Amino acid sequence: MSVVQGFNPRTGEPFGEGVPKTSDSEVDRIASLAATAFDSWSAVSAAQRAVVLDALADALDAESEVLISTADTETALGVPRLTVELKRTTNQLRLFGEVLREGSYVEATLDTANPDIIPPRPVLRRVLRPLGPVAVFSASNFPFAFSVAGGDTASALASGCPVVVKSHSAHPRTSVETARVVSAALAAAGAPEGVFGIVYGTESGRALVQHPAIKAAGFTGSTGGGRALFDLAQGRPDPIPFYGELGSVNPTVILPGAATPDIAAGFAQSLTMGVGQFCTNPGLVFAPASIVSALGEAVAATGGGAMLNERMCESYRASTDALAASDLVSVVSTGTKPDEAWAVEPRLFTVPVKVFAENLEKLTEEHFGPAAIVVTYADPDELLPVLAKLPGTLTGTVHAAESDHAAASRIAEVLRGVAGRLIFNAWPTGVAVAWGQHHGGPWPSTTNPLHTSVGATAIRRWIAPVTYQSWPDALLPVELQDANPLGIPRRVDGVLGVH
Amino acid sequence: MSVVQGFNPRTGEPFGEGVPKTSDSEVDRIASLAATAFDSWSAVSAAQRAVVLDALADALDAESEVLISTADTETALGVPRLTVELKRTTNQLRLFGEVLREGSYVEATLDTANPDIIPPRPVLRRVLRPLGPVAVFSASNFPFAFSVAGGDTASALASGCPVVVKSHSAHPRTSVETARVVSAALAAAGAPEGVFGIVYGTESGRALVQHPAIKAAGFTGSTGGGRALFDLAQGRPDPIPFYGELGSVNPTVILPGAATPDIAAGFAQSLTMGVGQFCTNPGLVFAPASIVSALGEAVAATGGGAMLNERMCESYRASTDALAASDLVSVVSTGTKPDEAWAVEPRLFTVPVKVFAENLEKLTEEHFGPAAIVVTYADPDELLPVLAKLPGTLTGTVHAAESDHAAASRIAEVLRGVAGRLIFNAWPTGVAVAWGQHHGGPWPSTTNPLHTSVGATAIRRWIAPVTYQSWPDALLPVELQDANPLGIPRRVDGVLGVH
Repeated sequence: MSVVQGFNPRTGEPFGEGVPKTSDSEVDRIASLAATAFDSWSAVSAAQRAVVLDALADALDAESEVLISTADTETALGVPRLTVELKRTTNQLRLFGEVLREGSYVEATLDTANPDIIPPRPVLRRVLRPLGPVAVFSASNFPFAFSVAGGDTASALASGCPVVVKSHSAHPRTSVETARVVSAALAAAGAPEGVFGIVYGTESGRALVQHPAIKAAGFTGSTGGGRALFDLAQGRPDPIPFYGELGSVNPTVILPGAATPDIAAGFAQSLTMGVGQFCTNPGLVFAPASIVSALGEAVAATGGGAMLNERMCESYRASTDALAASDLVSVVSTGTKPDEAWAVEPRLFTVPVKVFAENLEKLTEEHFGPAAIVVTYADPDELLPVLAKLPGTLTGTVHAAESDHAAASRIAEVLRGVAGRLIFNAWPTGVAVAWGQHHGGPWPSTTNPLHTSVGATAIRRWIAPVTYQSWPDALLPVELQDANPLGIPRRVDGVLGVH
Repeated sequence: MSVVQGFNPRTGEPFGEGVPKTSDSEVDRIASLAATAFDSWSAVSAAQRAVVLDALADALDAESEVLISTADTETALGVPRLTVELKRTTNQLRLFGEVLREGSYVEATLDTANPDIIPPRPVLRRVLRPLGPVAVFSASNFPFAFSVAGGDTASALASGCPVVVKSHSAHPRTSVETARVVSAALAAAGAPEGVFGIVYGTESGRALVQHPAIKAAGFTGSTGGGRALFDLAQGRPDPIPFYGELGSVNPTVILPGAATPDIAAGFAQSLTMGVGQFCTNPGLVFAPASIVSALGEAVAATGGGAMLNERMCESYRASTDALAASDLVSVVSTGTKPDEAWAVEPRLFTVPVKVFAENLEKLTEEHFGPAAIVVTYADPDELLPVLAKLPGTLTGTVHAAESDHAAASRIAEVLRGVAGRLIFNAWPTGVAVAWGQHHGGPWPSTTNPLHTSVGATAIRRWIAPVTYQSWPDALLPVELQDANPLGIPRRVDGVLGVH
């Protein structure tokens, strides 16, 4: 098939015109254009790049109607959710505008000379600079926020890197529409040609991540797909940084004091929102046996929905059917589903912690969708060795009453070894776009535990240091000049401040 | 052979007792002990870790006599150089003590809640935490500063990570002596057992980088050796961050105004210090043809010396002989050498820039040792497309008079795309240990352009973020508590300050 064809998950019917798959020679042309654009885009001032990002955000907001309607048809995620997601996406672009204006993201560092230490220190000035063209692999489950104009694109453009997006095949028309808005807005704002490009089809992604012009890559998706691209990126003659956000089990521990039936509604909502198609979906709950039935009733009352594509739907059905048929776990309850082509029901399973611990690898396989396993325990301290063995995960959640605080601390101490974000008395779905956000974690939740794909520090993935030694002030990048003409926070002889 | 045998490069004779190669089961025991030590070492306060690093520095200084004498016999680098190198090594440990006391290395970030934005923002608090046990692969050419107690070890211990060193086979007795001092000093300072370990032999390194307990690795050495270990680290079921500092050609551009004969002495000294066994050795000089003879005379006047081991010596002789025999370059001059077993002569070659550009790949092969190629040019702007095509390099140097400043800026603009540190009117050898240092660069100079193996930010390789969402103040890590009890610089709602 020479096109990427979109579908309507509610009907299973094709939607819109197929988008031609990008040929290798076209990938080469687009990546080479990005390399050329890098020279001019990386020379644009941070303040001006912020203006461009704001213009991009405004343009997407202005076209929200067509974007949301197209995405709703292709993803079945619903207009309310997609409205919020698009706003999140444009606010994310604006946050990076703030980051650029604040200016400390370049980590300007100035050392004066000291000839009297060993070894002697010359004048050193360090600043972070963009790496070059970045490949961005879109996710299926966030057609805006982790897609064509999502966080990877926003942070890479902000950093001064051109972007080539590999669109996700689950929403080709949404990708085409978004790319149209992005390209027009960038051109109108005076950004150079080639600063943004897009390719379609699986093969184009493989070509892209191996293209010599591409200097780094971001990815959000499955562990299998991410690993394959990671291996290609690391296997290059010149390996490049590859930031993948892959699978995540998101353990949630409900401590005894918090194990009351009124927690069930929040759980069921977090589990089933977006038909459970969140990388932070609470798929693994550790709870006293006493609340299993309440959790089960809440899940039984939920309605499910159509999944993003046929493959995901079939995979969810097959993997949860297999789980239900295994003698390791018991089915607690099953929700309903609408009469739609690729609809699935929420499902809840349960297993005692002892059995879970003995079958940890099998029972931590991700069932992408609205399914969860409740692991029952008697004493919170039984959980400590089990939680320590969990695969790396984006989030770890603790529900605790005042009386549980000591146990919560012990749990958190273990969870922070396996999780990137620890949540207290809330649910892991919902990832704020902020300075202090971390959306990352140990393998396999990401390919690199040092980095985040959400929040202000996501920009750091695309910038690398260069240090100027004994360089004349007038020839230095403006961030490093004596007078600090941009007035940004800098570190001078080890001390942070606006100086 | 079941031991790693040291040699005296001046005589070619074995030196001291061979050190038994570490078996796989012993590697497993040491790595597992490091994993156990991680729990307690990572819980030690930063202030206390700083005290331990200072004690370690003092202990190494106190044993300088035996350390330097052993290293001099095994490496032939000479007592003066090794005295400076050991002091550099202990000052490096002390710098990380300063970094810990200053406290901003954890990047404490606090966001207040904002329910009115999309998506709503809960209270978020982000801090960097140590990854776990780190494998450190020692270099041959810095038996102290990039070896058992070198920068990787110092920064990893500072971060709260235990360290297992793979010693370099070129200086086993120096490694044994250093490890003895390190182990005793750590124990005396109350650090947990297992926080430092050491293994010997190539196979032990391969086992180490693949051991499940090891969470990151640092390496300094050849491109071939580094690539092999990088591939093992990335090929694990759970890939780990691997920070390798590999080969570097270190281009130096002498602009017309600076091309006077008095530059030659500085060049020859930088080229031949430590028998050219520096990763920042200026092996590639771009200069007007008019000063080639002066550079040649200066190199002819140098004395060479014994290389670190027989393999390096043979490799240098073979590769420079092959270069001399090729019809691409001309031999300008050859220095002398002492009558020592593994001694080599400094050598200088020259080639016109046109021929260099046509044979760039061949002529940028690193000849580890005191050899350089002078690439002659007429107009500095001819160099721009050539410099842009150089392989990634740790340093790029420009020598310029006032009249060359415009050209120097154009050169720097290109060099910063391929080099991690840009030096003005000085030589690239000599890497200060400072806040603003960057000892890194694009592949193949390192495996990851975002990171440095020298300077304060080297600690960042071993720490990763965790974000606490809506967490009770009393249960937070001390760096994130409302009152800022440590008084460290933090980012609060986007603003940096001590608050």
